[in-house]
Amino acid sequence: MTRIAIDCMGGDHGPSVTVPAAIRFLAEQSSVQLLLVGREEVLRPLLGAQADHPRLRVVHASEVVGMDESPSLALRNKKDSSMRVAINQVKSGDADACVSAGNTGALMAISRFVLKMLPGIDRPSLCAPLPTSRGHTHLLDQGANVDCTAQQLLQFGVMGTALVAAMERKEKPTVGLLNIGEEDIKGNEVVKAAAELLRRSDLNFVGNVEGDGIYRGCADVIVCDGFVGNVALKTSEGLAQMLAGSLRDEFKRNWLTRLAALFAISVLNRFKKRFDHRCYNGAILLGLKGISVKSHGSADELAFGNAIRRAFDAAENRVLERIAAQMAQMTQLQPLAAEEVQ
Amino acid sequence: MTRIAIDCMGGDHGPSVTVPAAIRFLAEQSSVQLLLVGREEVLRPLLGAQADHPRLRVVHASEVVGMDESPSLALRNKKDSSMRVAINQVKSGDADACVSAGNTGALMAISRFVLKMLPGIDRPSLCAPLPTSRGHTHLLDQGANVDCTAQQLLQFGVMGTALVAAMERKEKPTVGLLNIGEEDIKGNEVVKAAAELLRRSDLNFVGNVEGDGIYRGCADVIVCDGFVGNVALKTSEGLAQMLAGSLRDEFKRNWLTRLAALFAISVLNRFKKRFDHRCYNGAILLGLKGISVKSHGSADELAFGNAIRRAFDAAENRVLERIAAQMAQMTQLQPLAAEEVQ
Repeated sequence: MTRIAIDCMGGDHGPSVTVPAAIRFLAEQSSVQLLLVGREEVLRPLLGAQADHPRLRVVHASEVVGMDESPSLALRNKKDSSMRVAINQVKSGDADACVSAGNTGALMAISRFVLKMLPGIDRPSLCAPLPTSRGHTHLLDQGANVDCTAQQLLQFGVMGTALVAAMERKEKPTVGLLNIGEEDIKGNEVVKAAAELLRRSDLNFVGNVEGDGIYRGCADVIVCDGFVGNVALKTSEGLAQMLAGSLRDEFKRNWLTRLAALFAISVLNRFKKRFDHRCYNGAILLGLKGISVKSHGSADELAFGNAIRRAFDAAENRVLERIAAQMAQMTQLQPLAAEEVQ
Repeated sequence: MTRIAIDCMGGDHGPSVTVPAAIRFLAEQSSVQLLLVGREEVLRPLLGAQADHPRLRVVHASEVVGMDESPSLALRNKKDSSMRVAINQVKSGDADACVSAGNTGALMAISRFVLKMLPGIDRPSLCAPLPTSRGHTHLLDQGANVDCTAQQLLQFGVMGTALVAAMERKEKPTVGLLNIGEEDIKGNEVVKAAAELLRRSDLNFVGNVEGDGIYRGCADVIVCDGFVGNVALKTSEGLAQMLAGSLRDEFKRNWLTRLAALFAISVLNRFKKRFDHRCYNGAILLGLKGISVKSHGSADELAFGNAIRRAFDAAENRVLERIAAQMAQMTQLQPLAAEEVQ
C-alpha cells in the first residue's frame, strides 16, 4: 500500500479541486492510501459518502500558506500549515510522498527544510515531463534554481536519469544539455564545463540540445538551469495558448468556418487531447530525502489527479533509492570533476 | 534611394534563393538599389533579363564563408568573402544596410570588426519581431551574447526602444524584462540589477515578463540575455513545428479526417499564414555603426525577401540615428547606474 499525503488547501481552487481529485484517484487505484491534509471542518463535508473510506484519512492542519506569501515567512511562521503538515507526513514515514498545488517557493523551502537533501546533491530541482513528437522528455530544472554550477547541472543529469530509469524502466536514458548550438564551443562557461562533466560521467550523454530539440525528443532527459528551464516552459505555454486561441478564432470567423469546425471537431479534439497540459501536471522536487510533488496552482480536478498519480508512481517505483544508487555510482568521478571546475 | 548590399552566397541555399528574392524585392520596391555580392560568374547567369537593371549592381567577391566555419578564422582569413565585402559596402558608405543568411557567428564577428560599436553600447544584440496575440513584440538578445551584465540588458532596452520607435512610430514603446516571475524578488542577480537600472531609466519599463508574456504581447520590447533569448526562440520553433506536424497527422488519419480537412482547409491556411515564421525572418544586429541583418540560414525566397525588407525598413527609418539619440538621452543616468551595479 502506497501512502500519499495531499495538501488539500493549496492551489488557486483549494479543496473544491483537491478533494474530488483525491476521491477519484482513490477509486481508480486500489493500492493507495490517501492522507488529506487541511482544515478538518472544511474537508469533512466535502467527503460525502467517502468519509469512512478505509483508505482515506483526514489529517487536521489549522493554517494555510497563501499563494503570494513569502516562502521564508511561511517556513518560519506557519508550522501548522496544510503544506507543512503534508510534508511532515513524509518525514515521519506516515506517507511515501506528498503533493501540493500551493505556493511553489514555499513548497520548495519547506520541503528542503523538513526533508533535507540526499547526500551528494546540492540543490533540489523541479522535473516534469513534456510532450515531444516521439513521446515525451524530462526537462530539469524547471525553476527551482536561478543560478546553477556545472556540478549542479551534472547532478540534474544524474537525478533525471534515475527518475526516467525508475519510472519508465529505461536502463540508459539519454541525457542532453540545453544549449544555443550543437557544437562544443557554444554556450556560456557554466554550460561548457557542465558538458565536460557530463561527457566524463557514466551517464548516456548525447551532447548539446537546442531549444527545438526539446520537442523533437532529442533526449530522454534535458538539463538546464532553472531560469532557462522556466523560460522555456512558460514560453511554450504562452505559444500553445496563443496558437489554440487563434485556431479557435479562425474557426469562429463566420458561418462557413463554423460549419468547417463541425466537420473537423473530432480531429481537433484528438489534437487537443494529445497535448493537453493537464496530462503533464505534477513536477517532482528531486534531490530530497522524500518525494514532494508540485502541481500547477491553477490545476483542475483532472490535472491535480495527474499530480497525485505522479507522486504515486514515483513512490511505487522507488525513485529515491534509484537516485541514491546512481549518485553512489558517480562518487568516484565527482571529486576529480569538482576540483577541475571550481 | 536606399541601397542594400546582399551577401548572395550565404545561407543553406545560396544564390538560388538570394538572387530571385533580390530580383523580386527590386520589382516591389522602387526606391531601393541592390548590390548583389558574390562570385560574379555565379551570380550573372542567374540575373536573366534583370542583368542590366539600373538599380542592380553585382559586386564581385571571390570567397565564401562556410556555414560551419569558425567565425574567428573567417574573420582572419576570408578578407574577400561575399559576407565581408557586403559589410564593407556599409562601412564605405556605398550601402545603407547589408543582409546575409550566412554563418551567424561569422556575421556577428565580421560586422563588429568592420562596422564597430556605437558609442555607449558594449555588445551587439540580435533583435527580430515575434508574433503575439495582439500583434508582435521584439525580443532581444536572440543569441549574440551568452552572458550579459545588467548594464548590457539596459542597453538592449534602449536599442529595442529606439528600433520600435523608429520602425513603428511608437513614441514610448513598453519594455519588459524576461524573468521567471512577475515579482521584483524573482530572478538571478543580473536580472534583479537590470530591473533596477530599467526602473530608473527613462524607458517605458513595465517590469518583469514571464515566458508566456512574450506571446501575450505584454511589452513591445522584451530584453534578456542571448542564451535565454535563443532558447526561448528555438523552443518556440520546436513546439510550433511539433504542433503543426501533429495537426497534419490528425487530419491525414483516415478518409473521414481527410474529408474534414477539405472543409477546414481555408481556415487552416489562414491560421498557418498568420504565424508563418518566414514573415518574421530577418534579425537586426543592433548596436553597430551600420545596419547588418541576419536571415535564417534555411530561408526560402519569401523569407529572404522579408530579411531584405527588414534591412530596407531599418535604413529608411534611420534606426541608427534613433539609437544614438536614445543613448545620448541615457548618458546622464549611466555613470551612476554603472557604479552601483559593478
